[in-house]
Formats: sequence, structure tokens, C-alpha cells
Amino acid sequence: MSVLKEFTYSKRFPNLPLIAAAFADQHPDLIPLAFGLPAKESFNLSLMQESSVTAIQKGGVKPLEYGGGIGPKMVAEWIKQRLLLRLVRAETNEILVTAGSSQAIDIATRTLTDPGDHIWVEGPSFFGAIRQFLLAETVLTSFPVDEEGLRVDIVEQKLKETKRNGGPMPKMLYVMPNYHNPTGVSLSLDRRKKLAELAYKYNFYVLEDDAYVELSFTGEYVPSIYSFGPERVIYLSTFSKIVAPGIRMGWSVASEPLINKMRMLKSDGSTSVYVQEIVSQFLITIDFDQHIEFLNSIYRSRMKAMVAAIEEAFEDISYIVPEGGFFLWLTFPEGTDTSQFMQESLQKGVSYLDGAHFYLNADEKNHIRLGFTYCNEEEIKRGIERLAESYQEYKQKMFVLEGVKE
Amino acid sequence: MSVLKEFTYSKRFPNLPLIAAAFADQHPDLIPLAFGLPAKESFNLSLMQESSVTAIQKGGVKPLEYGGGIGPKMVAEWIKQRLLLRLVRAETNEILVTAGSSQAIDIATRTLTDPGDHIWVEGPSFFGAIRQFLLAETVLTSFPVDEEGLRVDIVEQKLKETKRNGGPMPKMLYVMPNYHNPTGVSLSLDRRKKLAELAYKYNFYVLEDDAYVELSFTGEYVPSIYSFGPERVIYLSTFSKIVAPGIRMGWSVASEPLINKMRMLKSDGSTSVYVQEIVSQFLITIDFDQHIEFLNSIYRSRMKAMVAAIEEAFEDISYIVPEGGFFLWLTFPEGTDTSQFMQESLQKGVSYLDGAHFYLNADEKNHIRLGFTYCNEEEIKRGIERLAESYQEYKQKMFVLEGVKE
Repeated sequence: MSVLKEFTYSKRFPNLPLIAAAFADQHPDLIPLAFGLPAKESFNLSLMQESSVTAIQKGGVKPLEYGGGIGPKMVAEWIKQRLLLRLVRAETNEILVTAGSSQAIDIATRTLTDPGDHIWVEGPSFFGAIRQFLLAETVLTSFPVDEEGLRVDIVEQKLKETKRNGGPMPKMLYVMPNYHNPTGVSLSLDRRKKLAELAYKYNFYVLEDDAYVELSFTGEYVPSIYSFGPERVIYLSTFSKIVAPGIRMGWSVASEPLINKMRMLKSDGSTSVYVQEIVSQFLITIDFDQHIEFLNSIYRSRMKAMVAAIEEAFEDISYIVPEGGFFLWLTFPEGTDTSQFMQESLQKGVSYLDGAHFYLNADEKNHIRLGFTYCNEEEIKRGIERLAESYQEYKQKMFVLEGVKE
Repeated sequence: MSVLKEFTYSKRFPNLPLIAAAFADQHPDLIPLAFGLPAKESFNLSLMQESSVTAIQKGGVKPLEYGGGIGPKMVAEWIKQRLLLRLVRAETNEILVTAGSSQAIDIATRTLTDPGDHIWVEGPSFFGAIRQFLLAETVLTSFPVDEEGLRVDIVEQKLKETKRNGGPMPKMLYVMPNYHNPTGVSLSLDRRKKLAELAYKYNFYVLEDDAYVELSFTGEYVPSIYSFGPERVIYLSTFSKIVAPGIRMGWSVASEPLINKMRMLKSDGSTSVYVQEIVSQFLITIDFDQHIEFLNSIYRSRMKAMVAAIEEAFEDISYIVPEGGFFLWLTFPEGTDTSQFMQESLQKGVSYLDGAHFYLNADEKNHIRLGFTYCNEEEIKRGIERLAESYQEYKQKMFVLEGVKE
């Protein structure tokens, strides 16, 4: 046998930190505020069991066989109906059921772009999406977000300027219009319209990631970007936050030729036929609106509990109270580096994500993302207290250090 | 709103025919011999229902939550034990549970290769794999297969020659060592050893697709290629043929660093946690060896029924009687184009795949692949009769045409 030589793997792998690795060594009583996890109370276990039995009772061997062609239609039919609430009018052949929306982000990206193509994103933006874009070897530029979401005016300016200078125009713009991850803000109606208009005018696609749309604490909805530009928007969402993430099911909506291309990159074939049929049974059995109201009542209370605890424990930070979704985004005074009290917080028994993960070049260090959905109100209160303690200690240490420097 | 401009999608999409499209307009009493579908009788419906209930009974909310990190371990543990039969000794962190083995083929390919890299394949080879390789924009070269599988001697010759000439060496060689799709042959022990040796010597990876290994009609097994070269082989297999394809679950085995890279390209996150836990329950409850014996008793009889029907109905074709798997590969006299009686066969009520689909350039037209697992023995007999009829008619038509030409 010859000596093992070095092998050159694909160059597509970016050198990205594994975010979860930071939490490997966990406190026995850790209060996890780092991730976007649904509440344990949100799962309807008995209905999931019942639906699994019924799927086979009704479908026989069908749910266990290959999906064939475009796969089972029942979930897609449900999605089609539900999408009308977002003013998305799509036929089932314009809907692709995916294994979570992260798979949809991946295959949409590789359908629209080749390596070297440009994608524009919000800054901050969802790190999972950024990771997919980097794995697709695209070039990223980010644009700021304010309390009405992405600064579409700055995007427009940059489009004009880039066009004029003959620079590389974007093939795609990724945006999370409702209860944005990580900031919690939503894109205003005017900006949605404007963004669709720009997509037509400058010939790029908007990838509209609507993972959190159902989780509205006000009951109010703004029409999707898709509704203003169905030919230049790929709309996607997921069952992860509203049924269960462990089933791995989401969907994308786009024109049929585009969906057919995306299907070619969906190398798992149909998303598990059995799971699709189970979820179909789940959805036609449950009172879905009531279920969503139940989820939102839990999440609204937890968000309020977190805001109250923050008001109690912090003096010098700012945040926008979210009207839905999973996250609260804290802004610390300029000069704060929130990664610097991460280890201390973990030792005290609370986890969070420092905001740098959500920026392309970790350019802003004074933010923290907190998830308010997983822990109960008592835990949230305790978690915020622990966080405030480690922040106070960090501030004192900084004060001493700066004192020494002067 | 501006006029819609033309959009340039990724150039990664090859111009491939959709194979299933040929069967769109189906005979009401079609006997489907075209695809590799498990027998309806092979599914254990009640155990699947029971396992779905038990997974939640035992696991609570766990099967419905995000897998986190490397996901659930139970299925991987079972796979680890079962792999010992193939002399594959792997730790669970060297096993990646995938959504069917087609997903594994995709992500293994994109882990090892960049566009323009070379992959060597068997000719004929599985069209699903060829499709993934083309979508990864790799360059393919094929090597012949005889009754002992891939002609490894010709591969060796070509490796030497390419090396000497400074030509492009392969990054990967794709091979199906047991009950090869489509020919049904198995790779001999000597050739397996040799192939592993070549992979080390010339520094490429063998992608060992072992989808059919459990379906042995003789009860005999040859060690995997992986067992001879774990550092230069990615081994993969699937539950599709032995539990159910509709669950979409398979696995790959490779060194930990390689598996970690593959995981980065697995954009669906963990394969459905719920399905993994259901399948775990299924596997620990069933007497798996007895289950496999049951499957093989069905498939062995159906294969024999197909061979008998062919002996009865055809005079001028040859084939190798497979010792396992799903497929029988018929070779017609030189000059036959098996795509030419496809429509007639469909009209008579039988489907098959013409062999050209399995070649890179459709270079051999005188083969047919038949799947013997899905239809019962009576249907198989009828299907073969229908096929023979349309072949006879085709021959007569050819005879007349050639008479006219002369």
C-alpha cells in the first residue's frame, strides 16, 4: 500500500467558525438564550403521533414509497391556501416543499448564481444564510437595517451607482421582511413595494425569507414582497417555528421554470414523503389559527418578560420591542465588545449570541441577540440577571484597564 | 413597473432529459418494470405506525426539536453495528445520516471536486449519480463493466497513461460494487483490493455506492472496498430498499474531517430528527435479519420468474442472472435500438428503461434495464410477454425497412 498523499478538497469551503462550538462546555443549569428554539410547550405530541398513524391508515404504502415526479400534493395544497394571507397567489407546481428553509436558501442561491456572482444582504443578517452564500462562493455586500427594516433607499443608491460605473450588479438580494433575524424589525410596506420595483428594474431576484411571518404579536400583516413582484421574488418559509423543527420541512414559491431548476438541485428527491403526509394530517386536523394564537400568546408573554427583566437590570442599552418573531436585539454603548463577556456569562449559566456573527466582517461588536421563545418567564428573568452581572463585571474590568492605560 | 428582462440563471444546469417524462401518458393496466421500486409487500406498515408513536412516547419533544450539532445518535449506532458485516469499522462521528443516498452522492461529490475536476465512472452507471456529477460541473469518463464488475485493469492502465502524459487525473471514481445498477453484476474481491490500492497510489477517492448490499440471494458477501482503503473511500448506502424509500434516509461513511466537510454542504441540517427516531424504533423492534430474508425470498422468486419468462419469450438476447439487487440487464443483438419500441411497449402496457440512459453519451443502444422487485410473478410474466411482442414487431419493421434499403 502506498503512503497516503495529501488530498485537495473542493475550494468551496469558507473558513467559518462553528457557532455551536462555543457552547460545548455547558453549565449544568444553563439558561439558553442563544438560539431560536420553539417552546417545548408548543409541540402537539399526541396529534403528531395520531397524524403518523393516520397517514399510513389512509395512505397505505403510498407514504412509504418514492414520491415520484413532483411528490405528494397535500402539504403543497395547504401551503397554497395559507399563502393567500400573504397575498401570494401560487399554483402547487410553483411550490417546492423543502427540508427546512435552509435547504431552500441553498438551492435557490445555486439556481440563481455561479461562483463570483454578487449577493446583497442585510447587515446584520441570518448567519445560516450567510454561510450558504459563502459555500456557493458568491460575493456579499451588506446594507444597513433600521426600525423599518432594510434601508432600501441606500440599496437603490448603490444600484444606480454600480450600474453607472459598470460594476458587478447583484443577482440576488436576501431579505427577511417579518421579525427579522436578528433585529426583530419588519420591512415597511413602502419599502417592500420599492424593493420589488428595483428587482424588476435592475433585474435581480429578491430572496424573501419569511420564516417568522406567522408569529405576529399584533395580528397585523403587511403583504409579502412576492405579492408586488412574483416574477423576481423567491418566497420561502418553514414549518420549523409553527409545527416543529425536527420534522425538517419548509417551502419555497417561485415561477414554475425556476422551481423546476431548484428541484434539480434538491438532491434528496422529494422531502420525506412520510413526513409530508404526517404533516398534512396534522394540519387538516388541528385548528391552525387557534394553534398560532396559542403560540403567540406564549411568545408575547415571554418577550414582555424579557423586556421587563432588561428594563430592571440594564441602564445603558437600547433595543426595539419586536412585534413578533423569536428575537430581541440589544445594542450596547459604542466601544463595547459583547464577545468579551460570553465565557463569564456561560459560567454564570446563561448563553447568548454576540452580534458580530450576523455581520459579514464582524464589523459591529456592540450587539447581542437573545431568543425569548424557549425559556419560561422565570428562567428568562434569571437569565437576564446573570447576563447583566457579567456585563457589569466586564464594564468594571474595562474601566480599570482604561484607567491603567491613561 | 419596468418590463421584465431576461435573467441568466446559474450555468450549472446540464441539459438532461427528465426520464420520468416518458411515462407521463400511462396505460390503465401498465406493468411497471422501468424503475427500482421495492415490493408493496415489503413495507411493515403496522410497525412503522407503532414506531412513530413510540418515538414520541420515549423521546418526548426531543424528536421534534432541532437535532443540534451532529444530530441524534441512535440510527448512527445501528448503522455502525450493521457495517461490521461489510468489514467497515467506523465510529458514529464518521457516519453521516443523509436524506437518501442520492443526497450523499451530491454532497460527497461537491466536497471532493470543483467544477472542471474529473470523475471516473462505470459505463453503464446509475443515471441519478451521473446527473449529480453533471450538476457539479465535473468532467466524466467511463470504463467498461464485465461479469466481475468494473474493469479495474483498464482503469489502472488509464491512470498510468494519464499520469505519464500529465493529463487530468480523477479526483473520484464512482462504483457500485454489489448488484450494480443497471447490470446486476458484483465487483470481484481481487478488483476491490486493487481499486483501493489504486486510490492510494494515484490519490483519488472511491465513492462506493452500496445501495443493494443487503439484497443478496445467495447469503454470501464480499468485503467492501472501504475495508481495504478507509482513507480513500467514501462508503454509502440507504434504507430505501430495505425499510422504505418514502422516509428518505441513507448514510455515508468517511474519515471524520471529510464527514465534517460533507455536513457543511448538507443544507437541510440534520436529516429529519423525527424520521431518524422513528427508524431507530423500527430497527430495534424488528428482527432485521429475518426481515431481510423475507425481502430476499420475495425478490429471488420474482427474479427467477422474470428469467423464466424471458427464456420463454426471447430467443436472441443475453443477460447475466443477478445474485441479488433489483435489476436484470438485457443485451439485444448489435444494431438493436431499444428506445425504438418503448412507445409500443407502453401502449401494450409494460414499461422499461432503455439502456442508453446509463451511458455518458448514450453510446450503447442495445440494452434494456428491467426491475424485477415491484410486480408480482404473474404481472412479470405478462409484462415480459408484452415486451417480447413489441420487440418482435420492431424486428419485423426493421427487417422490412432494411429490405427496402437494399
